[in-house]
Amino acid sequence: MSQESWAYLNRVVEGPSRPLQLLLDAGRDADEIARGVRVRASWLGDLGPQTEARRSWDRAGQDLAEAADAGARLITPESREWPRAEFDVAFGFAAAGRSEHVRSYQADAVPPHALWVRGTPLNEAVAQSVAVVGTRAATRYGHEATRQIATGLATHRWAIVSGGALGIDTVAHEAALAAGGLTVAVAACGIDRTYPARNAALLDRIAARGCVVSEYPPGMPPQRHRFLTRNRLVAALTAGTVIVEAAWRSGALNTLSWAEGLGRVTMAVPGPVTSAGSLGCHERIKDGRAQLVTGADDIRALLGAVGALDVAEQYELAYAATPVQSLTRNELRVFDACPPGGSSAQEISASAGLPVPLTVHLLMDLTRRGIISREGAAWSRVEVAQG
Amino acid sequence: MSQESWAYLNRVVEGPSRPLQLLLDAGRDADEIARGVRVRASWLGDLGPQTEARRSWDRAGQDLAEAADAGARLITPESREWPRAEFDVAFGFAAAGRSEHVRSYQADAVPPHALWVRGTPLNEAVAQSVAVVGTRAATRYGHEATRQIATGLATHRWAIVSGGALGIDTVAHEAALAAGGLTVAVAACGIDRTYPARNAALLDRIAARGCVVSEYPPGMPPQRHRFLTRNRLVAALTAGTVIVEAAWRSGALNTLSWAEGLGRVTMAVPGPVTSAGSLGCHERIKDGRAQLVTGADDIRALLGAVGALDVAEQYELAYAATPVQSLTRNELRVFDACPPGGSSAQEISASAGLPVPLTVHLLMDLTRRGIISREGAAWSRVEVAQG
Repeated sequence: MSQESWAYLNRVVEGPSRPLQLLLDAGRDADEIARGVRVRASWLGDLGPQTEARRSWDRAGQDLAEAADAGARLITPESREWPRAEFDVAFGFAAAGRSEHVRSYQADAVPPHALWVRGTPLNEAVAQSVAVVGTRAATRYGHEATRQIATGLATHRWAIVSGGALGIDTVAHEAALAAGGLTVAVAACGIDRTYPARNAALLDRIAARGCVVSEYPPGMPPQRHRFLTRNRLVAALTAGTVIVEAAWRSGALNTLSWAEGLGRVTMAVPGPVTSAGSLGCHERIKDGRAQLVTGADDIRALLGAVGALDVAEQYELAYAATPVQSLTRNELRVFDACPPGGSSAQEISASAGLPVPLTVHLLMDLTRRGIISREGAAWSRVEVAQG
Repeated sequence: MSQESWAYLNRVVEGPSRPLQLLLDAGRDADEIARGVRVRASWLGDLGPQTEARRSWDRAGQDLAEAADAGARLITPESREWPRAEFDVAFGFAAAGRSEHVRSYQADAVPPHALWVRGTPLNEAVAQSVAVVGTRAATRYGHEATRQIATGLATHRWAIVSGGALGIDTVAHEAALAAGGLTVAVAACGIDRTYPARNAALLDRIAARGCVVSEYPPGMPPQRHRFLTRNRLVAALTAGTVIVEAAWRSGALNTLSWAEGLGRVTMAVPGPVTSAGSLGCHERIKDGRAQLVTGADDIRALLGAVGALDVAEQYELAYAATPVQSLTRNELRVFDACPPGGSSAQEISASAGLPVPLTVHLLMDLTRRGIISREGAAWSRVEVAQG
């Protein structure tokens, strides 16, 4: 199939297109479909009316040239770097229509038919990747949480996929680059356009190490509905999606809904309840639609890269119990009943409200463990920092 | 049964005591058991060795007098204000041994045999109550979150039960009082003692409106093991427990474990992941052992006082969608394709990649809804604040 046919279809069929997907699934190739669109073939089905308005926008050569000028190439299901496995898994899951989101956006739950890419081979970039997205109106807390999480993931060789937007997306991309990791930006406009303009240099740095991807032909302006279909790609390309800061109607929730509908792992980072900035994250956790994650380790555990128990173990090590915190309740009663100056076993027994034999047994055991010391008949506490 | 017998038992049997509970359940009354302890009766079972060391501490009259001096009274299962329903439900649930916590602390999973109370009748104070607990080392965030939650609960006539400790407990009590609500402090020391000393005035204010409660006889010092058994009372007296700020080994987690073991609703407030202050809250939510709550409305919904849907509705109202946020994807495509200066339906159709008839239909519908306007053949957007 020629690149020209794919480029022509990419221009006249605004993705995602279920009618185009049906024709491809039925065994028609891009050359044949492109010809069919040009001549309004009878077998086009719903692709006929869908292409009617743009059918004559025949500028495949120009689109390919403009992309090349911008350092980009067109990749298709025939390309070696097509993320076939990711799309098969995600859109195969969606076909089962298990989530309400996918039932509402059925028409969009199909893979892209071609992608424009700047940078490293896309399939390699996303082979071990996670989406980190969030509000454009990020708070200082959102910045800091995103930086910690993206740095931790990048350090463990997880590529960060995001939308290249201001706020959380930008911090996620930047932190991944700063940690020497791979990152992928999925744009909601033509690959030759820079949006947001303020991120021009960042997008160049992303393309130099990872890649920038778009489903739309050169020159396409970013529009709201393209943000929504772009979000489905972010979710489809990655093993899971993490939302870091998302208010009640944040667009990041749309990406998370896509991840859910595509069978990906859905995760949300909590935040202060005293501001509305994390309200969307909290709501998804409450509804059981996202797992609460507090850092890169949690995320890696959920994505199966590391055992959840290992994470708990790390906390146990990081916040080790003091000897006193490890005592059983009867041990504590005896320990607490030892006055600073020392006392007899009988007195300690009465003060602890425990039988003398049990008290003596516990005192001896605590002495062996270095928590109590004995001088003659007097038992006293060894000085320990109090919990 | 005489108050003296209960007071004697309260002094010589450090609660909670399963052996004492077994004797009461078997139908022996307090007078009989007190006599039995004094004479080392053969039928005492495990209560024999448990009382051996303190048997001779016969100072019931003095304890009752000291409590009265402190403005407190002794209440027992025979008192009208005994929170019988709360204890029956909680310890009845615990008897089923469904939670690991209760299996580990089986001996403690019994009701108190008597309580010292300063203030309003206890059963009335806790009839509609929730426990709000957290770290002593509260951050500014913890303070603010606690204040919001306790104020919201108090405003809706929920009594706040807590431990009277510094940090979160103090803020919870104070916020409840400031909102004109009831609050109950459960102490881990004798009712006549003030702990922490800094909270002396607060405890007086609590007793003046709600009440202060202790399971321990006058003069008993606060000790670590008493904090743990006190925590079970906080959980038992309330419909649910909320932890606001609790690090990995916070004592507040012990209260939450008790709430779980006693069949109460367990709730945790999330916080910033960039500090360790809410690590314990997050861990319990992750493990499915606590529900994430962000405010008083969530808590009331979980306690069945208000429908969960009403809460979602409030958010919907508070963060109402703009007209553009409510558009379907095809509506958005048409809306986005309308240039600022207006354009023909044909041009808009091509730009949106939608058939002309559908485009016209959508344009007319959006015009009816006041989102698009038409002048002659030109359709343009009505100025709307952009999402």
